[in-house]
Amino acid sequence: MCPIKKILDLQQVGSTVEVCGWLRTKRTSKNCAFLIINDGSCQDSLQVVCAKDSDCHQMTQGLVTGVSLRVTGTIERSRGEQTVELLAIAIEVVGKADGYPLQKKGHTLEFLREQAHLRPRSNTFGAVFRIKHTAALATHDFFAGRGFYWLQTPIITANDCEGAGELFEVQRGADFFGKRSYLTVSGQLQAEAAALALGKVYTFGPTFRAENSNTTRHLAEFWMIEPEVAFADLNDICLLAEEFIKFVTAKVISECVAELGFLEKFYRPFSIATLEKLATCEYRRITYREAINLLQRASVKFDFPTTWGVNLQTEHEKYLAGQLFDGPVIVTDYPKKGRPFYMRDNDDGETVAAMDLLIPQIGELLGGSQREERYDVLKEKITDNLDWYLELRKFGTAPHAGWGLGFERFVQYLTGMENIRDAVLSARARQLLAF
Amino acid sequence: MCPIKKILDLQQVGSTVEVCGWLRTKRTSKNCAFLIINDGSCQDSLQVVCAKDSDCHQMTQGLVTGVSLRVTGTIERSRGEQTVELLAIAIEVVGKADGYPLQKKGHTLEFLREQAHLRPRSNTFGAVFRIKHTAALATHDFFAGRGFYWLQTPIITANDCEGAGELFEVQRGADFFGKRSYLTVSGQLQAEAAALALGKVYTFGPTFRAENSNTTRHLAEFWMIEPEVAFADLNDICLLAEEFIKFVTAKVISECVAELGFLEKFYRPFSIATLEKLATCEYRRITYREAINLLQRASVKFDFPTTWGVNLQTEHEKYLAGQLFDGPVIVTDYPKKGRPFYMRDNDDGETVAAMDLLIPQIGELLGGSQREERYDVLKEKITDNLDWYLELRKFGTAPHAGWGLGFERFVQYLTGMENIRDAVLSARARQLLAF
Repeated sequence: MCPIKKILDLQQVGSTVEVCGWLRTKRTSKNCAFLIINDGSCQDSLQVVCAKDSDCHQMTQGLVTGVSLRVTGTIERSRGEQTVELLAIAIEVVGKADGYPLQKKGHTLEFLREQAHLRPRSNTFGAVFRIKHTAALATHDFFAGRGFYWLQTPIITANDCEGAGELFEVQRGADFFGKRSYLTVSGQLQAEAAALALGKVYTFGPTFRAENSNTTRHLAEFWMIEPEVAFADLNDICLLAEEFIKFVTAKVISECVAELGFLEKFYRPFSIATLEKLATCEYRRITYREAINLLQRASVKFDFPTTWGVNLQTEHEKYLAGQLFDGPVIVTDYPKKGRPFYMRDNDDGETVAAMDLLIPQIGELLGGSQREERYDVLKEKITDNLDWYLELRKFGTAPHAGWGLGFERFVQYLTGMENIRDAVLSARARQLLAF
Repeated sequence: MCPIKKILDLQQVGSTVEVCGWLRTKRTSKNCAFLIINDGSCQDSLQVVCAKDSDCHQMTQGLVTGVSLRVTGTIERSRGEQTVELLAIAIEVVGKADGYPLQKKGHTLEFLREQAHLRPRSNTFGAVFRIKHTAALATHDFFAGRGFYWLQTPIITANDCEGAGELFEVQRGADFFGKRSYLTVSGQLQAEAAALALGKVYTFGPTFRAENSNTTRHLAEFWMIEPEVAFADLNDICLLAEEFIKFVTAKVISECVAELGFLEKFYRPFSIATLEKLATCEYRRITYREAINLLQRASVKFDFPTTWGVNLQTEHEKYLAGQLFDGPVIVTDYPKKGRPFYMRDNDDGETVAAMDLLIPQIGELLGGSQREERYDVLKEKITDNLDWYLELRKFGTAPHAGWGLGFERFVQYLTGMENIRDAVLSARARQLLAF
């Protein structure tokens, strides 16, 4: 069995191969029948040619979109769009597909969400999931190449990473674990412990928010990427964020040519040029104070206030990264008030060493901070019973910093999907389908 | 700032570098003070030499194990065990460590479990987590190199993957999601849907079992690796399992020389030779029927019966992979009775196309099956309301197969840790620590 990707890449004209996949479309000319077969190994499908009067040609008559096939054939130079095609020697129907819901005509994304178990077979979601895979593997490449160690932090936890939103509780967790237990909102606190031992670490695993927001940008369950670096400051992790986004984006651009080409064609205004810019342009850095000044001087009318101390809203973030700078902006040094206990106080008494990376169209893509490493300062701010976390500041404390990125939101940007439910396999935000 | 790994690897004698890390031990000779510093970048620590009468020498007097330090110095050829050492120019204490619980003397693993936030700083857990990292990254290398796509399957799900054990329920899941919801026990069913679209996929993410077993081999929360391959049969995935174990083990052997060396020295009978065997030896294959025959003819007395139809117990598995074959054994074609609905019925009417990989000392390391791809056969066996899963057999069904491996149990084997709680960051099975 030979993957179609290999056939198209290697173009070994004259070889006989066996291909297994699903029929996308069929057409008939005067002399031949043509089967377009996809096996998921790549975006492109393979054209199988069945010469007239051959047994294969006979076979093709009952075939409908969606059937699974096993085809033996000879690789030939193609006269069509593709470089090579397969001249069929034998065709076997492996699985029928009467009433198959995905037909050639483009289905809406809404319709495909209801067919979550089948939609990976569509061109759109084949592209999305291969791009997601490439971005996920590039994430590991990036960190491993820089001496970071990957950690699996606990999913069921007794911690509430303060201020991070509503928690899912595990039923009868108290019976099982001896205390009330929740699904994690972040692996950061445990990653800090590990960074203060292994130096550079990162998490890449699921996190949970029981928030009511049923928007196109929020999921109840999503994967977070959270690097944490010992002996690093805010500046170091701003640089790390820029390098990370550039690395992963460049990898997707170079490895997913056909996938991006398909999405650009069918999902305007998504454009590869936008990604190329993200992978290469300068990332502006401004402080929150500067951001507020810029927003106040903007000719745009905002819905939310822009006075010092307010949270930047998505409209503000989009203005900064969109209209104003037309590219990624890292905003640093946010007001202290209302920020989580673990962020390091700046010397000005008003701000903390926090950062957000904003990008056009999306707004905030990732956020991080230098962590409060001073025992006395942290003890004043901490409200939870986190003795172990405080102890990290008692025994060999060190400056350290990190950020968190919601992976699906990044995938949304890399694929041009407007709804985050189209960046996950299960196609759901709040609605729990059986799938 | 330069990682110690880089200093020891590159041996750039004469260079001046800055090192940040934690003091492991200190000793004083007539002419010098020696600081042993570890930064987590590798198993080995760096020796820092402070010449007598230097400012640095003065500084070392108050230093205790566990303090964090920033040291500037010159790389020199070493006279001691290591290839290079650092001649100190300046030392700065970054964080104190009065009363630090981890001292030079070897602590018990039980004690270290109570110090879960600090234990990654110990030699043992530095080794364990670096080996775990290497095995995790090798997992991605293995699958990506063979054209598999990584999937993130849902954690919160309405499915019960039948027969896989007790479920954790998410509290108020019905309010939030509209139906009762659970933490996943396996991503297999969704991976099957994806494999029947993308061809070859794998999951690598957390799964949950609310079982009461508080053993050294079970966790309530653990990461599973689950490949799923379309157009593959039982034989294909047996081969995949053998190749996977060999690949990952060989990678750990070649990349974690110092870590394995440390563990072998302090955790006998753990031996690198055992891993080398796992990475290179032939994996025997026998059917369940043959296994039962072999057990019945064994001179060993078992606690559990060995008649056809019984589940193989750990004692049986250890006998087969240990005493009898002294190496990995893949057992196939188990009795149909009591096996999950998704396993493919064999033609004999008695068995299913399932497989388990057994290894010495541990017993079962991974288990898998060819999946029932025939609509009518599956419809008879399925009890849950899994219309979407059945539909996969209606529209372009194809033979497919896969297996699941509990990652932490494999890490246990790769590190020689007897208790699975020593293969996870949080050091817990049922007991939920604050950490």
